[in-house]
Amino acid sequence: MYQYSHGGNAAFESGQEIKLDLSANINPLGLPDKVSAAIVSQIPNLTSYPDNSSGALRDAISEFENVDSRWIFCGNGASDIIFRIPRVVQGKKAMLTAPTFSDYERALQSYGADIAYYTLVADNSFTITDEFISAVEREKPNLVYICNPNNPTGRLTDASIIGELLVRCPETVFAIDECFLDFTMEASMHTSKRFLGQHQNIIILKAFTKMFTMPGIRLGYSLCSNESFNDNLYFHGPDWPVSNLAQGAGIAALEGADEFVKRTASYVAIEREQVERSLIEYGFRIFESSTNYVFLQSPFEFDLQEELNKHGIRIRSCNNYHGLDNSYFRIAVTTKENNATLLSAIETITAQKRFI
Amino acid sequence: MYQYSHGGNAAFESGQEIKLDLSANINPLGLPDKVSAAIVSQIPNLTSYPDNSSGALRDAISEFENVDSRWIFCGNGASDIIFRIPRVVQGKKAMLTAPTFSDYERALQSYGADIAYYTLVADNSFTITDEFISAVEREKPNLVYICNPNNPTGRLTDASIIGELLVRCPETVFAIDECFLDFTMEASMHTSKRFLGQHQNIIILKAFTKMFTMPGIRLGYSLCSNESFNDNLYFHGPDWPVSNLAQGAGIAALEGADEFVKRTASYVAIEREQVERSLIEYGFRIFESSTNYVFLQSPFEFDLQEELNKHGIRIRSCNNYHGLDNSYFRIAVTTKENNATLLSAIETITAQKRFI
Repeated sequence: MYQYSHGGNAAFESGQEIKLDLSANINPLGLPDKVSAAIVSQIPNLTSYPDNSSGALRDAISEFENVDSRWIFCGNGASDIIFRIPRVVQGKKAMLTAPTFSDYERALQSYGADIAYYTLVADNSFTITDEFISAVEREKPNLVYICNPNNPTGRLTDASIIGELLVRCPETVFAIDECFLDFTMEASMHTSKRFLGQHQNIIILKAFTKMFTMPGIRLGYSLCSNESFNDNLYFHGPDWPVSNLAQGAGIAALEGADEFVKRTASYVAIEREQVERSLIEYGFRIFESSTNYVFLQSPFEFDLQEELNKHGIRIRSCNNYHGLDNSYFRIAVTTKENNATLLSAIETITAQKRFI
Repeated sequence: MYQYSHGGNAAFESGQEIKLDLSANINPLGLPDKVSAAIVSQIPNLTSYPDNSSGALRDAISEFENVDSRWIFCGNGASDIIFRIPRVVQGKKAMLTAPTFSDYERALQSYGADIAYYTLVADNSFTITDEFISAVEREKPNLVYICNPNNPTGRLTDASIIGELLVRCPETVFAIDECFLDFTMEASMHTSKRFLGQHQNIIILKAFTKMFTMPGIRLGYSLCSNESFNDNLYFHGPDWPVSNLAQGAGIAALEGADEFVKRTASYVAIEREQVERSLIEYGFRIFESSTNYVFLQSPFEFDLQEELNKHGIRIRSCNNYHGLDNSYFRIAVTTKENNATLLSAIETITAQKRFI
């Protein structure tokens, strides 16, 4: 039974009016300038089929990521690629951390794979450690998705752990989802790109959605140096996954992206620290995030999501993540103004509740 | 091993310069007026996630198709839905006609289904007859795709045959691809929409690509009255399959679509008849098409595709379709001017070759 299980859906739900949607994690700096113009300039091309392999877009990504353009596959959002991967891997045993992004589970269930869950624990701030490597060695899954930094916790996995996994589990394919990595200050230290070329059992996922604030356009890509794997990504899904509009938008978003990404990461780091510090002050338990959302546990009886709804603010309850419960929440770090609105609402809520 | 197997790719191939691409079949009347403006007006919405279930677009389709909006699923092109269907059906036996559109085969292979091919024959103009019903009864496949009219032959299947199949093979799901049906003059006589509601083993596929001349946008949909089937279409593929831009473009395309579709069908009928008559004159064998392309067999030694390439005209060799060989070709019927250019080139080629 299908159930929509993401944030960012406030506009299509009935109920309380939402003034501020912090349930989806997109860039507070907004859409890069050139994207709108690029879309308009693509309109005359609507009457032609798109380039099936997104050649010009792959060239632009190649330059941005400093990765061979033949290693790149572009899809209708990272989700498109998440669903193609199990079909390319063709193995029925998979392993996921709990918690993690829910689409991996659905893609694996759709393929008919059995999933072993490795539970991350609060005492360890939900961090992946060496013990996980042993668990993968023991389970021998065909496929493991690792979200880095993890959604919803915002926690990073050390590149050394990924490196160890690739060496010690060569029969396992590792799909490393770095959709939120460019929001961290130390992205180049943490990316698994260094393993491409040397290892054929790794595919890295990235998206335009979050960093370039264009969830309405659907555009994601993968990096993988295994030629037959890339070939099979085309085989195991519809042709023309990326429209002409999205290809044009992607190319435009990447113009000057290095500077944009740097500016974003600095902005987010300062804002996140401020939000986390205030939340601790108000009594919440914080698990230091490395990306553009905070992850917290509430010690209070009241439901933080419901209370914030009354203030017109939508956050993401983590109740439906494996390994979490209704005391956990994920909140996007957005603009300075939005973050202030959020914190002021939380301050009011916690103060009121203390007096009851 | 993946191989791109469609027309419409001339712009991304190296080699002879192509002035006229008749290898893809899109509407000669072009993009409906309001689509460009609708795309521009969607630009402010790029920073929000799309409505996962394309609610407003489904309402517009509901009105256009005269079908309950709950029976509609919108995807990233009809191909997206073609790939989801085997995963929803969850059966490993499938049946296809030969020839037919190649994406059904790839979607079934990707799912891991065994495919029985029912060969259509030239003597019978590649028409599906009652004998096909017996073959399906005998084979008992879980899933059958029927392209109506068929690609590449342009031949229609009688609604009475589809009706018989639904009744006599209730355990089989029939995916009826009507992506080219609205180009025929008698579409309402031939559509399988009449079976929705009564039968839960039918799903109809439609696309904006061809009729509304927007292959660059990727937008298709399905009609099915089986609620759990529709629910599973969401489950077995990525969320947010349709971007905000595509949802807006689709809604705009459907404004005044009844008149546009009628005008298109009349235009195409007149042009197709003219093209077919001339091709017969030049010595080709024609299998009367009901849609916006003609299907022919060449009795000549020379390769028609290669000869037309020299004139800067791209057509579709049907050599890579099951059941056909390199004597068969599919040519789009487009504008009066383009059709005249095509016919004049063919006249020159056949006259030259006769004198050699």
